[in-house]
Amino acid sequence: MARVVLGMIGLGTVGSGVVRLLAQQNHLKLSKVAVLDLKKERQHLPPCPLTIDAQEVLDDPEIEIVIEVMGGEQPALSYLQRAIEKRKHVVTANKEVLAKHGPHLFEAARKRNVAIFFEASVAGGIPLISTIHKGLEANDIASITGILNGTTNFILSSMEKSSLNYDDALTQAQKLGYAEADPANDVDGHDVGYKLSILSALCFERFVNPSEIFREGIRNITDTDIAQAREFGYRIKLVGTSRRGEEGRIDTRVHPMMVALNHPLASVSGANNGIVVNGDAVGEIMMFGPGAGQMPTASAIVGDTMNLASALQLPDFARYFQPNILGEWARTTPAGSWSCPFFLRLSVNDTAGVIGHIGTILGAHGISIESILQRGVAGGKASIVIVTHETKEKNMQSALSELRKAPFLHAISSCIRIFGSGS
Amino acid sequence: MARVVLGMIGLGTVGSGVVRLLAQQNHLKLSKVAVLDLKKERQHLPPCPLTIDAQEVLDDPEIEIVIEVMGGEQPALSYLQRAIEKRKHVVTANKEVLAKHGPHLFEAARKRNVAIFFEASVAGGIPLISTIHKGLEANDIASITGILNGTTNFILSSMEKSSLNYDDALTQAQKLGYAEADPANDVDGHDVGYKLSILSALCFERFVNPSEIFREGIRNITDTDIAQAREFGYRIKLVGTSRRGEEGRIDTRVHPMMVALNHPLASVSGANNGIVVNGDAVGEIMMFGPGAGQMPTASAIVGDTMNLASALQLPDFARYFQPNILGEWARTTPAGSWSCPFFLRLSVNDTAGVIGHIGTILGAHGISIESILQRGVAGGKASIVIVTHETKEKNMQSALSELRKAPFLHAISSCIRIFGSGS
Repeated sequence: MARVVLGMIGLGTVGSGVVRLLAQQNHLKLSKVAVLDLKKERQHLPPCPLTIDAQEVLDDPEIEIVIEVMGGEQPALSYLQRAIEKRKHVVTANKEVLAKHGPHLFEAARKRNVAIFFEASVAGGIPLISTIHKGLEANDIASITGILNGTTNFILSSMEKSSLNYDDALTQAQKLGYAEADPANDVDGHDVGYKLSILSALCFERFVNPSEIFREGIRNITDTDIAQAREFGYRIKLVGTSRRGEEGRIDTRVHPMMVALNHPLASVSGANNGIVVNGDAVGEIMMFGPGAGQMPTASAIVGDTMNLASALQLPDFARYFQPNILGEWARTTPAGSWSCPFFLRLSVNDTAGVIGHIGTILGAHGISIESILQRGVAGGKASIVIVTHETKEKNMQSALSELRKAPFLHAISSCIRIFGSGS
Repeated sequence: MARVVLGMIGLGTVGSGVVRLLAQQNHLKLSKVAVLDLKKERQHLPPCPLTIDAQEVLDDPEIEIVIEVMGGEQPALSYLQRAIEKRKHVVTANKEVLAKHGPHLFEAARKRNVAIFFEASVAGGIPLISTIHKGLEANDIASITGILNGTTNFILSSMEKSSLNYDDALTQAQKLGYAEADPANDVDGHDVGYKLSILSALCFERFVNPSEIFREGIRNITDTDIAQAREFGYRIKLVGTSRRGEEGRIDTRVHPMMVALNHPLASVSGANNGIVVNGDAVGEIMMFGPGAGQMPTASAIVGDTMNLASALQLPDFARYFQPNILGEWARTTPAGSWSCPFFLRLSVNDTAGVIGHIGTILGAHGISIESILQRGVAGGKASIVIVTHETKEKNMQSALSELRKAPFLHAISSCIRIFGSGS
């Protein structure tokens, strides 16, 4: 097989892993790597020619595949656009650029008959993209749901395991290198939103604009929530989900959910990811594994590069190998059309008739109660935990507004969606 | 895209599912289906031309792909050989034929430049084959381990859930259609052995001869074993595993194992399958889903057929799409070289010093004890449960021989391997 010449932009943690794995592949030649700092210590790496000028990689006529592992929106976007203009195939791990500019990038790639491979952009080393694209070819995908962010899963796992509150668990995750100094991208669900946008493109042919994704992060999850979830047979996970809605619309959302302890997703612990795919023929399949990390992510990038390099030998291959992704955004459903069972924890004044009042308010919004538990706490207050049957999001929101005005209510301590057969 | 013409051999449960899914694919034309009985009621199926003569399918020059879903060793093997001789590509779900004759079939296919696709032969609808072949391309696989038989998993799950003994759980599975009248192929581990042979070919380039696979089934698992496993934090599963051993040998085995309740494999319940793959770059990834059933299996077959039909448009495609599988059997390790922790349950005479004697015997065979629990039972007997540290299989077997001769021993009630980090 002819040797395929590669260029790479970025040489951080993941890039270094890629260099190491590529060194084992004789038919792939990494001819140029663009870096920000030529003088950085890289003695532990197999030798590769460095440049500080990304254009040298993008303009080199010998280079057929550009690997982008620098991350961030700019200048990565310009580099990818330039690579595609120069008719180079692209392998990228950049979820932010794909989610925010996917329709444009895939349209440009189609026009120039080049491929964009992106296995590493979602779920790190788990070969989720190729599994859905090739392994489930005979299926219409109805929904894809999962734990897609290792940082928040690590934080939630250690809150449960070590009985930490959110702040202490975050600090610990930062010390161990699992969370950034500014954790917003992870804990507020942006990262999961980007990944869902990409998975939607793969499953439903259109990217979902990240600005239209309903997001709720994990900052408000307390150790009490986690303990009470456990008592009711659940574990709290940050869950992202995307599914076909009515009229060809796509329903995409990120929020904490209670997952039943006997569901395999509940056993996805620490920095791992777990994804459930529902296909019309196959039913439900799941994949678990390391969602990030140097070598798992490098494994995905080099796997893409090897598959792409093989395919390059075939004429007009992009038509066969590239998932069909359209150059327009998905139409999304209104957030209120979602439905699931809910877990509510209310702090109320411990007076007669309160449960009756709550039941009446919920009932008036069409919400039916599956189980309810009241406990007296200090200071004349009581804690009431309610698990509802399947409820429309907009009904729950209007019931919560009404509850907030009720004289007996001290606080809505938590309102967490429950992951179930309908989710 | 040009229409690709298909033939099929077999039209049972899975075949009927295939016909249904193919009806949605306009570029695939099912031109002939060979069946045993033309008069069988098939009104619910989309129409397709039937024949009782399989040679008509094999000799039709228009047919480019032969789908084999008849199962069993013969005449399926002859049909597959004939199809390959006639330079037809093959999609098959037949694990028995692949496991027993794989080296020969793949060698014949390579010589004639045709492809054998076999996603449906292992783990039903879970796209395990394509995931390992394409998704983990950049990895050397160290081991593959899992729950690969839905029948036995269903039996073990209902023994635990409904506190049934083995015979009652088997009868129930037979009534529900999960187990055959003669269950030997499932409960004695033959089926898992076939699947491991195929997975070994994919991961290690050589089939393992099923006759060389160490097998222990689930017939001897009692409700007591299951209850005690639970008490120690385990669930009993029939586990198959194949891994690289020393000197290029492959270590392949099937037996019940205790799986820790917090491991995701423990939550694979009912007729589902779950597989753990260990790659040098990616680490550990897992896949779960329906291991059998009409539409899941048909999903795998039609997915293969669609991928194959696309690839047919490309010249010399087999070289790129076919996993590299050699025409010779793997060399296997001796069964005694395996090691793992063990769970032992002994029935002994309740006399002084018995635990000391047992400890001495185990110690003499280099076996170290992690935990031990003694309980008095009726009739002057005691039950002793021992969990060992990692132990070589051959040491355990020789210790068991010595224990059997000990005057205090009433019976070795069970000896079950424990699934752990080393497994």
